Amino acid sequence: MSSSADELARRAAEAMWSGDHATQGLGMELVNVAQGFAEITMPVRQEMVNGHGICHGGFIFTLADSAFAFACNSRNQMTVAAGARIDFIKSAKEGDVLTARARVVHQGKRTGVYDAQVVNQAQEVIAEFRGNSATIGGQLVDESAS
Amino acid sequence: MSSSADELARRAAEAMWSGDHATQGLGMELVNVAQGFAEITMPVRQEMVNGHGICHGGFIFTLADSAFAFACNSRNQMTVAAGARIDFIKSAKEGDVLTARARVVHQGKRTGVYDAQVVNQAQEVIAEFRGNSATIGGQLVDESAS
Amino acid sequence: MSSSADELARRAAEAMWSGDHATQGLGMELVNVAQGFAEITMPVRQEMVNGHGICHGGFIFTLADSAFAFACNSRNQMTVAAGARIDFIKSAKEGDVLTARARVVHQGKRTGVYDAQVVNQAQEVIAEFRGNSATIGGQLVDESAS
Amino acid sequence: MSSSADELARRAAEAMWSGDHATQGLGMELVNVAQGFAEITMPVRQEMVNGHGICHGGFIFTLADSAFAFACNSRNQMTVAAGARIDFIKSAKEGDVLTARARVVHQGKRTGVYDAQVVNQAQEVIAEFRGNSATIGGQLVDESAS
Repeated sequence: MSSSADELARRAAEAMWSGDHATQGLGMELVNVAQGFAEITMPVRQEMVNGHGICHGGFIFTLADSAFAFACNSRNQMTVAAGARIDFIKSAKEGDVLTARARVVHQGKRTGVYDAQVVNQAQEVIAEFRGNSATIGGQLVDESAS
Repeated sequence: MSSSADELARRAAEAMWSGDHATQGLGMELVNVAQGFAEITMPVRQEMVNGHGICHGGFIFTLADSAFAFACNSRNQMTVAAGARIDFIKSAKEGDVLTARARVVHQGKRTGVYDAQVVNQAQEVIAEFRGNSATIGGQLVDESAS
Repeated sequence: MSSSADELARRAAEAMWSGDHATQGLGMELVNVAQGFAEITMPVRQEMVNGHGICHGGFIFTLADSAFAFACNSRNQMTVAAGARIDFIKSAKEGDVLTARARVVHQGKRTGVYDAQVVNQAQEVIAEFRGNSATIGGQLVDESAS
Repeated sequence: MSSSADELARRAAEAMWSGDHATQGLGMELVNVAQGFAEITMPVRQEMVNGHGICHGGFIFTLADSAFAFACNSRNQMTVAAGARIDFIKSAKEGDVLTARARVVHQGKRTGVYDAQVVNQAQEVIAEFRGNSATIGGQLVDESAS
C-alpha cells in the first residue's frame, strides 16, 4: 500500500469527520487511518450505561460501526454499511476507554467485508464485529486537488 | 399468553428501565411490552446524524438492541445479548421518529433468537435486526411480591 | 398477492429445479412455492451425519439456503445469495425429515432479506436462517409465454 | 502454542474424522490441524452444482463449517456450532478445488468466535465465514493416553 493511498485515506477521513455530529458527540477520537484501516477510541460515559453500570451494547456497536465506516471509505469511494454482525465477548463499564480497529477482509467492486475488534484499555476483547459495505458512487474528496 | 405473564413482563421492564441512562438519554420511550415482545420509539436528534444528515447506523442498532433487551428479559430471567446482526434497509434522517418492535422467534432454556424491525413514522422499514440472547441466571423482580 | 404472481413463481421454480443436481441429489422435494415463499423437505440420510450420528450443520444450512433461493427467485428476477446467517437450535439425526419454509422479510429493488425456519417431522425447530439476496438482472422464464 | 497442543489437536481431529460420513462423503480432505486452526479441501463435484453450473452455496458453507468444527474442537473440548454467518464473494464451479482455512478469533470459557476463509485453486476468495461455537462438556480423546 503506497503512502499516497494512505494520504488519500486521511483526506477522505477528514472530510467525513467534519460535520459528523454522531461520532464527535460520543467523544470518539480518530486515532489512525490508512487504506482499508481505521482506529477509533471512545470513553464509556455515564450516559452510555444501563441500570447495571454496564455499557449498552448499542454504543459498542456504534464505535465498531464508525471504525468500519472510516475503513471502508478510505479508498475515497462513497460507501455505506449494508449490514453488520457483532458478537459481544466481555462487558464494558463506565470509565473504560474502548478502541475499535477496523480492517478490510475483502473489497470487491461494489461490496466489501470488514472486521472490527473492540478492546478496552487493558487490551481485553470486548466485541468482534463484521460489516458488509456497499459502494454507492461518488467520492468524498477531489483527488485532483493537491 | 396469560395476562399474568404480560404483567410480569411489565414489572420486569420497569425494573430495567429505571436507572437505565442509555435508553433514557437517547430519548427512547417504552411504548409496549408483553411476554416475548417490546416496542420502543426514539426520535432522530441532531447529535445522531453524520455529515450527510443521515442517522448513524449505530443509533438505529441501539434502538433495535434496546427493544431486543426488553423483549428477551420479559420472562423475568436475567438475559443479555450475546450477539446480533442488523441489515440496513433505508436511511433515517434528523427529525424522524423511529419505532423498533422486537419479538421472540425462539426461546430455549438458555439461548434465544429475537427479531426486531425498525420503521419510521411513515411505517417504512429502516432496518431488520436479529439478536442472540443468553440467559445468565437471576431475576429482575421478586415474583412473589404482589 | 395475485394468483398470477404465484403461477409465475411456480414457473420460475420449475425452471430453477430442472438441472439442479444439488437439490435433487440431496433428496430435496419442493413442496410449495408462491411469490416470496418456498417450502422444501429433505430426509437426513446416513451420508449427512457425522461421527455422533448427528446431521452435519452444513446440510441443514443447505436445505434452508435452497428454500431461500426459491423464495427470492419467485418474482422471476434472477437473484443470488449474497450472504446468510444460521442459528442452530436443535440437532437433527439420521432418519429425520426436515422441512424449510422461507419467506420474504423485505424485498427492495436489488437487495432482499429472507427468513427460513427449519423444523423436523415433529415440528420442532431445528434452525433459524436469515439470508441476504442480490438481484443480478435477467429472468428465469419468459413472462410473455402462455 | 506448544507442539503438544498441536499433537492433541491432531489426535482430536482423528477421533472426529473417523466415522464422519458427512465430510468423507463430500470428498473433503483434512490437510492441516493445529490448536485453533484447521485446513480442509473439497472438490466441487457435479452433484454440488445447480442448473447454472455453479456450486450450491450450501456446499461452500458445509466446507467452511467443517473447518470451523475441526478448529474449535482442537483443544479436545467437545464443542458444537451455535451459529454462523457466511458472505459469498465469488461463485465456484464444477471442477474447482476449494480450500477452507479456519482459525480462532476469540475463545472464551464456553463460547468462541472462529473465522474461515474459502478460496479456490487460484487462491481467489470464494467466501468469508464466521462461526459461533459452544463448548458442551466432555472430551474427544483421553488426554492421559500416550
